[in-house]
Amino acid sequence: MPTDSVGIVHPEIMVFDDTISLESGSELEGFQVAYETYGTLNAEKNNAILVCHALNASHHVAGVYADDKKNIGWWDNLIGPGKPLDTKKFFVIGVNNLGGCHGSTGPSSINPRTGRRFGGDFPIVLVEDWVRVQALVADRLGIKRFFAVIGGSLGAMQALQWSITYPNRILNSIVIAAAPKLSAQNIAFNEVARQAITTDPNYNRGHYYDKNVIPKQGLRIARMIGHITYLSDDAMAEKFGRELRKDSLAFNFDVNFQIESYLRYQGDKFAENFDANTYLRITKALDYFDPAADYDGQLRLALARVGGKFLVISFTSDWRFSPSRSHEIVKALIDNGKNVTYAEIDAPHGHDAFLMADSRYHNIIRRYLENA
Amino acid sequence: MPTDSVGIVHPEIMVFDDTISLESGSELEGFQVAYETYGTLNAEKNNAILVCHALNASHHVAGVYADDKKNIGWWDNLIGPGKPLDTKKFFVIGVNNLGGCHGSTGPSSINPRTGRRFGGDFPIVLVEDWVRVQALVADRLGIKRFFAVIGGSLGAMQALQWSITYPNRILNSIVIAAAPKLSAQNIAFNEVARQAITTDPNYNRGHYYDKNVIPKQGLRIARMIGHITYLSDDAMAEKFGRELRKDSLAFNFDVNFQIESYLRYQGDKFAENFDANTYLRITKALDYFDPAADYDGQLRLALARVGGKFLVISFTSDWRFSPSRSHEIVKALIDNGKNVTYAEIDAPHGHDAFLMADSRYHNIIRRYLENA
Repeated sequence: MPTDSVGIVHPEIMVFDDTISLESGSELEGFQVAYETYGTLNAEKNNAILVCHALNASHHVAGVYADDKKNIGWWDNLIGPGKPLDTKKFFVIGVNNLGGCHGSTGPSSINPRTGRRFGGDFPIVLVEDWVRVQALVADRLGIKRFFAVIGGSLGAMQALQWSITYPNRILNSIVIAAAPKLSAQNIAFNEVARQAITTDPNYNRGHYYDKNVIPKQGLRIARMIGHITYLSDDAMAEKFGRELRKDSLAFNFDVNFQIESYLRYQGDKFAENFDANTYLRITKALDYFDPAADYDGQLRLALARVGGKFLVISFTSDWRFSPSRSHEIVKALIDNGKNVTYAEIDAPHGHDAFLMADSRYHNIIRRYLENA
Repeated sequence: MPTDSVGIVHPEIMVFDDTISLESGSELEGFQVAYETYGTLNAEKNNAILVCHALNASHHVAGVYADDKKNIGWWDNLIGPGKPLDTKKFFVIGVNNLGGCHGSTGPSSINPRTGRRFGGDFPIVLVEDWVRVQALVADRLGIKRFFAVIGGSLGAMQALQWSITYPNRILNSIVIAAAPKLSAQNIAFNEVARQAITTDPNYNRGHYYDKNVIPKQGLRIARMIGHITYLSDDAMAEKFGRELRKDSLAFNFDVNFQIESYLRYQGDKFAENFDANTYLRITKALDYFDPAADYDGQLRLALARVGGKFLVISFTSDWRFSPSRSHEIVKALIDNGKNVTYAEIDAPHGHDAFLMADSRYHNIIRRYLENA
């Protein structure tokens, strides 16, 4: 085990018996949340950092499991003793979002009203709902205020939403590779992914668990589409090239180019490990996220009463949520006189850059937290 | 009928009995080609312009059919009496590419060796093959040399290939919204489209005609993916907005945003009118196009012996084949001392701009042809 790893970690479950009303108007009669923690909560309970996950991740943010040492947390390069989110100083929490498929109540859970799995009846859960559930977890842990809430992509939207929903419970929002709402093109990619799943003959309007099938074909395509949007064209070219040598052309539909092999592998792997019903709902949470919607589209007004300070980071080659989308957030915060640090990293990796161990990027987070 | 329309047109069929050997090594024992012509071939037979089609179009380039007045040719805004490709001056020819699904021999044709439809056994046909077949059509019409060969996107690749394969049979190549080869990202989008089709349960390795099914689900997704790449993000935003009003959110998987409705409509329409086997093969022709492959990747060497003059046009918002891809072509031509006119149009429509009636764009083609 590397000395800067948090080491062996244990997922935990927190059960909530009360009914929760969701933004959609639906209710859940009790639910559970899977989470992990790293480091130690201090006596003042003021050193907690919440890490919010994006589309396809979970509460397993750092470390490994005793019985599965290859299953390294998805942001392990950022979190650990001596790392930017230094677990010698901070108590770091990862929460599987409600509606997820990694231990929190979701579409594959039993619906207490029917005694059968929710399937297609599971409600759509929004960013606002996740933030509220995360606050309930914090309550249970005795955390009145987070030192920071951090996330990339959809995780960043949650970090931003925290500053809106709970302005007095957050000292710092770290908003990475974000957008204040999706563009029409972003929604279009999500919609094609959803259509691939919902038109898969195995989908059965979401009630596929009982039939012992999964809409694997559709989920596989959805994931492949997603992957293209996570990488920059340059990153793909560097990673895979084209291998376009005439003598290697097979003139059939097998793999001819490395990028084809990569996409098929990513699609297969994901389709076996992620729940299509969860994927469908998370893309909707992305589409619906729009804090300015209640303010006639004016983000400045939506962010007028946010709490805490902000670190906003974008990546030049990110074409999913380009730096200009972060500029919108930064401008709205500055217009409101908020304390904002903004960094634009000249990184070639596209949207996925937020997951990479780029030292310029990581040092910005490290210094920001040291000075916060 | 507008006075600048070519009016009622008639598709024609040309039958070739000889066996043709394709770039892939496969052979076809005879084939037929569907084509249309507009205007009049002059006595010297030196006023012919060949229009090459892209992924989803056909030989029906201009005018309408007597029994289907709504079926307007796909580049009707460019071709007709008084239009940039002026049919009072030019004899314009559209050819359905070999392997197509609009009248030329393709996967749904009868395989003479088996007496059944080719289906999945139809070979992959490359840009070089199409150009050779177009030359056979020209031979039959008595056209020794084209005044111009014009195309956008994959059609532009054919116009460029004409200057390589038949340097003495072409006076002008008009290469619009092109790339000298696909990027890894371009190939990735094609691959996801192919995977959507080939994993559709109805695909049956391409032998679906006999079973009276079509891989409609997959073809629909393929088309939706394509459409996203044809439009710029700005064009989508302007065309559809986001309609992200909280009070219109349905919290289900029906259409919430206009862009969703548009994509579903385009996918449905296409899947009912285009053959998936043809779509699969045309995307492969795109992936494989790479004139520099035989020259160690050096486009300058590949274009050393091209014939004719060149008009190259790109569009600023085209992110499928961005202006920088056209620059590669222009630079390689200039390095060889070729006569090149280059225009970069500041148009918001993305890749689809080549199909739009932008007057700046159309006037460049008009003037170029007047001065050629």
